[in-house]
Amino acid sequence: MTATPFVFTAWASAYQQRIEQVLEHTLPASDTLPQRLHSAMRYAVLGGGKRVRALLAYAAAEFTGATAMHADTAAAAVELIHAFSLVHDDMPCMDNDDLRRGKPSCHKAYDDATALLVGDALQSLAFECLTHAPTSHAVQQIQLLAQATGSRGMCGGQSIDLQSTGQTLSVDALATMHQYKTGALIGAATLLGAYAANQPTDAQLQALGYFSERMGLAFQVVDDILDSTTDTQTLGKTAGKDSAQAKSTYVTLLGLDAARQLVQQLHQDTLTRLAPFGETAVALRGLATFICERPF
Amino acid sequence: MTATPFVFTAWASAYQQRIEQVLEHTLPASDTLPQRLHSAMRYAVLGGGKRVRALLAYAAAEFTGATAMHADTAAAAVELIHAFSLVHDDMPCMDNDDLRRGKPSCHKAYDDATALLVGDALQSLAFECLTHAPTSHAVQQIQLLAQATGSRGMCGGQSIDLQSTGQTLSVDALATMHQYKTGALIGAATLLGAYAANQPTDAQLQALGYFSERMGLAFQVVDDILDSTTDTQTLGKTAGKDSAQAKSTYVTLLGLDAARQLVQQLHQDTLTRLAPFGETAVALRGLATFICERPF
Repeated sequence: MTATPFVFTAWASAYQQRIEQVLEHTLPASDTLPQRLHSAMRYAVLGGGKRVRALLAYAAAEFTGATAMHADTAAAAVELIHAFSLVHDDMPCMDNDDLRRGKPSCHKAYDDATALLVGDALQSLAFECLTHAPTSHAVQQIQLLAQATGSRGMCGGQSIDLQSTGQTLSVDALATMHQYKTGALIGAATLLGAYAANQPTDAQLQALGYFSERMGLAFQVVDDILDSTTDTQTLGKTAGKDSAQAKSTYVTLLGLDAARQLVQQLHQDTLTRLAPFGETAVALRGLATFICERPF
Repeated sequence: MTATPFVFTAWASAYQQRIEQVLEHTLPASDTLPQRLHSAMRYAVLGGGKRVRALLAYAAAEFTGATAMHADTAAAAVELIHAFSLVHDDMPCMDNDDLRRGKPSCHKAYDDATALLVGDALQSLAFECLTHAPTSHAVQQIQLLAQATGSRGMCGGQSIDLQSTGQTLSVDALATMHQYKTGALIGAATLLGAYAANQPTDAQLQALGYFSERMGLAFQVVDDILDSTTDTQTLGKTAGKDSAQAKSTYVTLLGLDAARQLVQQLHQDTLTRLAPFGETAVALRGLATFICERPF
């Protein structure tokens, strides 16, 4: 008798459906007062996105021997934070983007004031969600998520991005900005999953740190490549925005070929680093490939 | 030998200074990357406000036998949430107010995008702060604060307020709106302080519930009275805004005299309810008087 071979697409699809259900139950119903706000929160969160951050949490939970049920609150919390950041980033005073996940962005479908409150309330809900985590590490999860979200994480990265628009950044400065803006939450998603039930070992934490650092970078480089090579309809968000806003990207700084090579290198290094962990890391390796081989 | 008599103004002044120091140390320094965001966060939080929510946390901590040191994280967290709400409420897409605590509001002193990020990052910081609470009740504190902040608390109240502008509300509908918008965070401030160290008794929790409910209402009625009777300079924020925006208030619905009588009744009921707790409730009673007797 042989074990069922691991098929990443089946694994990812099962967890994408699972997190949709979890988020569905975590968000207040649309008929709960205040109805317009709850309806807008559900619009902003449900039925869209690749759920990469939730998948990271579930994969890291498997890596440390936790069940999916243990990781549900972590997966939901990181998706709620991500959704809040998209709603606020799309607002007129930020990136002013009308399209998100293939549909009108939240402030277009509702209004600016509602979008502001949606983002605020989704952030609160993410932390509330973690207080229900079935683990003795809930405080640690909340601390990791708060640090990754705040001024020395995602919000800080957005601030650096605003300050940098129109300037040519060095590759190092670009990496710092993206470590704050995207990498911090990707790292938190992974660690929250790792703390879903058990105390991760030092070897596991080191491997996850290596994984998150490279995948955070790869994710952004791929985003930059897609922004420069893919049309808006395929992307589900406005394409070509970086060059329109004269932003430094890995494509403008390195060129398209070198950017692609960088992603391949990060991918290969990550697979090699996780190889000794065998079957426990099969979902993490699948995610590394998924992140690095998005069509471009 | 007799005990030193309790002087509320001295008590409040000592704790106002204490919370300023705690917030000073909780906020990242202005020279920490990203500097502009950190500078704006400090601008929005430090050097202003009556710190009523922090005082509630400290008074409730005294009530349950916790030390000030135990309550510092609770007091800081509720002030950070309050400051975040003021920054976002003042933005052009919300109340569009240029003046706050006697100085330009955050989006005027900086810019709209920075103000948006300031609010977001202050919320994260509030929850991070509570993860450092020296208590086994940190998860419970975080849950209470998240619920009071989110869509079924403060953010929800702001949404109801937006939907209600221009309509004449019933007194009940007005009370519901303010319970979400202001009352929830006042209740959370009190409960967070109560859970600063020990498990509060049922008798303490019931008394605090009574206190919070009445003081939440009194706080708002006094705000409405002040908005209609005080000039902008004294208030430190734009006065007469409610009538300019055709908002229902306790003054428009009840009339000025009945609104004042309501506050006196709430004040008296609260003092009576807390009387059996003797010295442990002296700061709570002082706060009730402070909230109800702001000059009007």
